[in-house]
Amino acid sequence: MRVLGIDPGLSRCGYGVVDSGPGAGERIVSAGLIQTAPSAPLGERLTEFLSEMTSLLEDYRPDVVVVERILFRKNAKTAFGVVQAVGLVHLACHQAGVAVLEYSAAEVKLAVAGHGAASKFQVQRMVQLIGDLPSAPEPPDVADAVALALCHLANMRGGGAARAASREPLAQAD
Amino acid sequence: MRVLGIDPGLSRCGYGVVDSGPGAGERIVSAGLIQTAPSAPLGERLTEFLSEMTSLLEDYRPDVVVVERILFRKNAKTAFGVVQAVGLVHLACHQAGVAVLEYSAAEVKLAVAGHGAASKFQVQRMVQLIGDLPSAPEPPDVADAVALALCHLANMRGGGAARAASREPLAQAD
Repeated sequence: MRVLGIDPGLSRCGYGVVDSGPGAGERIVSAGLIQTAPSAPLGERLTEFLSEMTSLLEDYRPDVVVVERILFRKNAKTAFGVVQAVGLVHLACHQAGVAVLEYSAAEVKLAVAGHGAASKFQVQRMVQLIGDLPSAPEPPDVADAVALALCHLANMRGGGAARAASREPLAQAD
Repeated sequence: MRVLGIDPGLSRCGYGVVDSGPGAGERIVSAGLIQTAPSAPLGERLTEFLSEMTSLLEDYRPDVVVVERILFRKNAKTAFGVVQAVGLVHLACHQAGVAVLEYSAAEVKLAVAGHGAASKFQVQRMVQLIGDLPSAPEPPDVADAVALALCHLANMRGGGAARAASREPLAQAD
């Protein structure tokens, strides 16, 4: 199974392609950034973003795309770009016939680093360890995108930290 | 000159095509709604919206597109759709090589109805009068879209209600 994780943004959007097979661990196939220039006109930036997202889907043919669930932010200008980037992820995936799932940042942190309030640094370190990488992915947007993909794979297996943590109280109650 | 006004929204997006020539008044060429079903998946709705917007640009070939400048709203779910629709307007216009301008709702009300706090009903009535229509455009989204186009044409002429109102105090000071 191949999962494409997306940490959405218009200036800087992290992506991470992760494979997982029966009996095999997770393998980070590719990870990086889509970037558009904040000084360029909005229509040009969105066109460029959509083109890059479409290329990612064509190049890596993921089974599913996982994008971070967004909340309103304090900085309206940044938030608009994030919301528009998420829209284009859904648009590109619909056109490519790929399903899109959303996880909250807290769910991702719980699944990957063991608790929902993990720091960006902890997420980067865990992604480095799980992916057996020589160094932590930079910038954090890239690590977050890989973590989104890992979170979904953990949930699919039913054995992720998120599941384990959320099941613990139930087991104790028995 | 042909202006396409857009009152953005994903469930319901008003549009109005208005022509204006030297010595001639404004003529409403077409006005209506782009609608997508709130129950459909987001990617499907955005794909449909982009397709309809692209068709509008191809069918009417406006010289400029005028879209309402959006602010954060209380209902986050609605606001996301509006922000994503605005993004697709910019995307479609960039692809069609048409410039996009933004006016605030208050600027439009001032230009069309004479004061920035005009009601939706007043805007509908003024659009009916200016456009010499048998009845007020319904729903208000359609009237708002036509009003956006009229606002831009008034500003282009330099003789709109908005300009007149903002100039008056200067004239009095002379």
